[in-house]
Amino acid sequence: MTDSNSLDGLIQALRRLPGVGVKSAARMAFHLLQHDRDGARTLSQALRHAVDTVKHCERCHTFTENEFCHTCLDPRRDASKLCVVETPADQSALERTHAYNGLYFVLMGRLSPLDGIGPKDIGLKKLVDRASDGSVAEVILATNFTAEGEATAHVIGEALRSRGVQTTRLARGVPVGSELEYVDLGTIAHALVDRR
Amino acid sequence: MTDSNSLDGLIQALRRLPGVGVKSAARMAFHLLQHDRDGARTLSQALRHAVDTVKHCERCHTFTENEFCHTCLDPRRDASKLCVVETPADQSALERTHAYNGLYFVLMGRLSPLDGIGPKDIGLKKLVDRASDGSVAEVILATNFTAEGEATAHVIGEALRSRGVQTTRLARGVPVGSELEYVDLGTIAHALVDRR
Repeated sequence: MTDSNSLDGLIQALRRLPGVGVKSAARMAFHLLQHDRDGARTLSQALRHAVDTVKHCERCHTFTENEFCHTCLDPRRDASKLCVVETPADQSALERTHAYNGLYFVLMGRLSPLDGIGPKDIGLKKLVDRASDGSVAEVILATNFTAEGEATAHVIGEALRSRGVQTTRLARGVPVGSELEYVDLGTIAHALVDRR
Repeated sequence: MTDSNSLDGLIQALRRLPGVGVKSAARMAFHLLQHDRDGARTLSQALRHAVDTVKHCERCHTFTENEFCHTCLDPRRDASKLCVVETPADQSALERTHAYNGLYFVLMGRLSPLDGIGPKDIGLKKLVDRASDGSVAEVILATNFTAEGEATAHVIGEALRSRGVQTTRLARGVPVGSELEYVDLGTIAHALVDRR
């Protein structure tokens, strides 16, 4: 497409980023080469460094550079609570609330039969084994409130209940600061049922 | 933010891409590390390779790996026509029409006083010298039809006319395949004035 094979190669490589099509990729490549070659070098090194160093925590599966992540090693954490989230980004959102002091299990995805993602890919067996080892009193299912997230929570919940582990789900309800008029009806219905 | 410094570094580096905020950057980093480490390696190498090899054509300023680009060196090109575009992407769009057989001058930007981009940054002097060296019969101004693109075309046009070089501008008019009802009024007004 362009006069340079290495520029074409860069555009192709940028398209492997999620949500980046050919026009965005070309715009990114032109920007880096014209205005921010230093940024391109930094990004190249950061990619290489992350690929070489980032692995999964042996205990909770989140990204870490060590065998276990800081959260799993923190003795002030309440090990009797285990919160199940889909991604490190979800874990980070929960951490920022400062409202939770237990441990995590990060699925690194969600059940999605159409994409070929089954119980093995989200580490279901490992989660069930850990939750039923006697130290965990409650598993909080904090997967997303999407169709796939709900299905994932359902499957995990069934597996844990059959082992006698108590499970809870994040409350559904009206978001803080919202006006009822603009909240979708399904959410209002849930908030009515779960009123307290 | 996350448990890993190198993951945080990757997220920061991805934010240097145009149009990528912190949430998109985190999504990209998680995707690469979880599902496409091979893509991350490819992108890292492509960035390094492009930064090391891509430079500007001595004659037209477009990106190339050599002293002169293929277009400038092509003897079948009509050297009496010179088309001025803002970016290699615009040049590529014109090339794909197969309706132009002349040479190019790529500004690698547009005049934008608010961003501190002046005549020197778009190579105005080099363009004027080249256009008035006797071999160029017509300069086609194909900058974008935005406020900055129009201003850039105006400034270049004035500079060239003062040297006696003939300049033309891409025609403004109704896009092919569009219905008049949905075309903006400024475009229809131009199409009326420039009717043929």
